Amino acid sequence: MKLYDRSASGNCYKVRLFAALAGITLDIVPVDFAAGEHRHPPLSEWNPLGQLPILRDGTHTLRDSQAILVYLAGIQGDADWWPSHAAAQAEIMQWLSFAANEVQHSLCAARLVLKFDAPLDHAWALKRSSSVLEVLDRHLLEQPWLALGHPTIADCAVFPYVVLAPEGGIDLTPYGHVAAWIARMRQLPGFLPPPA
Amino acid sequence: MKLYDRSASGNCYKVRLFAALAGITLDIVPVDFAAGEHRHPPLSEWNPLGQLPILRDGTHTLRDSQAILVYLAGIQGDADWWPSHAAAQAEIMQWLSFAANEVQHSLCAARLVLKFDAPLDHAWALKRSSSVLEVLDRHLLEQPWLALGHPTIADCAVFPYVVLAPEGGIDLTPYGHVAAWIARMRQLPGFLPPPA
Repeated sequence: MKLYDRSASGNCYKVRLFAALAGITLDIVPVDFAAGEHRHPPLSEWNPLGQLPILRDGTHTLRDSQAILVYLAGIQGDADWWPSHAAAQAEIMQWLSFAANEVQHSLCAARLVLKFDAPLDHAWALKRSSSVLEVLDRHLLEQPWLALGHPTIADCAVFPYVVLAPEGGIDLTPYGHVAAWIARMRQLPGFLPPPA
Repeated sequence: MKLYDRSASGNCYKVRLFAALAGITLDIVPVDFAAGEHRHPPLSEWNPLGQLPILRDGTHTLRDSQAILVYLAGIQGDADWWPSHAAAQAEIMQWLSFAANEVQHSLCAARLVLKFDAPLDHAWALKRSSSVLEVLDRHLLEQPWLALGHPTIADCAVFPYVVLAPEGGIDLTPYGHVAAWIARMRQLPGFLPPPA
């Protein structure tokens, strides 16, 4: 399986992190993002949204980091990461949406401004980031992992832009339960460190 | 099962629409959104993000419209709406993320400004809405439904804010394949019309 990848991308790191934790071997294909390779065929046909990562398994193509997590966990068959029953999938799904919506438009946006000069409102992203981290911190006060009491793809979807938040000018020190969760993530066998 | 609902919300309509199509009976509990009922217990404890819909099945609580779709389709057991194998779930998941991220921060945002005076940038939302509708229109040129060649929860997650887009000042007439998909949705047995 080929992962079309940008090393600095938190969305790509979601997939690389899960693959490392689950023992899945991916063939990493670096994409020349600065040259706009993702905006030209074949990548622009594989993902018309013009985003990375993209996964190719034979001729089967997938965009979106959350969808790729569902795919990889599903074909790998370890039910701990992505169980098959409705209540468990829905509990995880809450956090996949949280990653795609709330985290993307707060922590990720703040980092895009400071690290990649994205034309987004940094003050607005910081304000939203505080709310997101407060919700996360309160949740992690009550349980060690985001869903089901053990590591799942929910943790892999949310972790990257949280651990990378300082690159967006966000101080994580007020969020002690988030920090403890980050430490637990780092202890997982096979853990892959975030991009430097 | 109780759905804590706001009738004008497209996210709540996602759930009501799917329940109608799948023949699932929900006990609709209207929430006094204007009075901030969602920001006080018990709703604020059930969903610390302060959003609707919220589903309660006995004492089991779920937030996030996409997660609720996964739950309802999963417990209902009709594999057409949400199949059990990895490739099919991942194909649908691409569109659940698209609903939570791209659609929410374009078509939905534009409507929030015009209909509910939300303090968001309408020009920015309109620009993003064009990209979102172009991607959708090109996709629907090639296939009748968003995923798997038949109606799934992907269609239920994306449809509401598309059909409600004119309330955000968006003209859908340039997007003929989107219009044809809307017409197909309206023909599905049990279809529930969008909020007026």
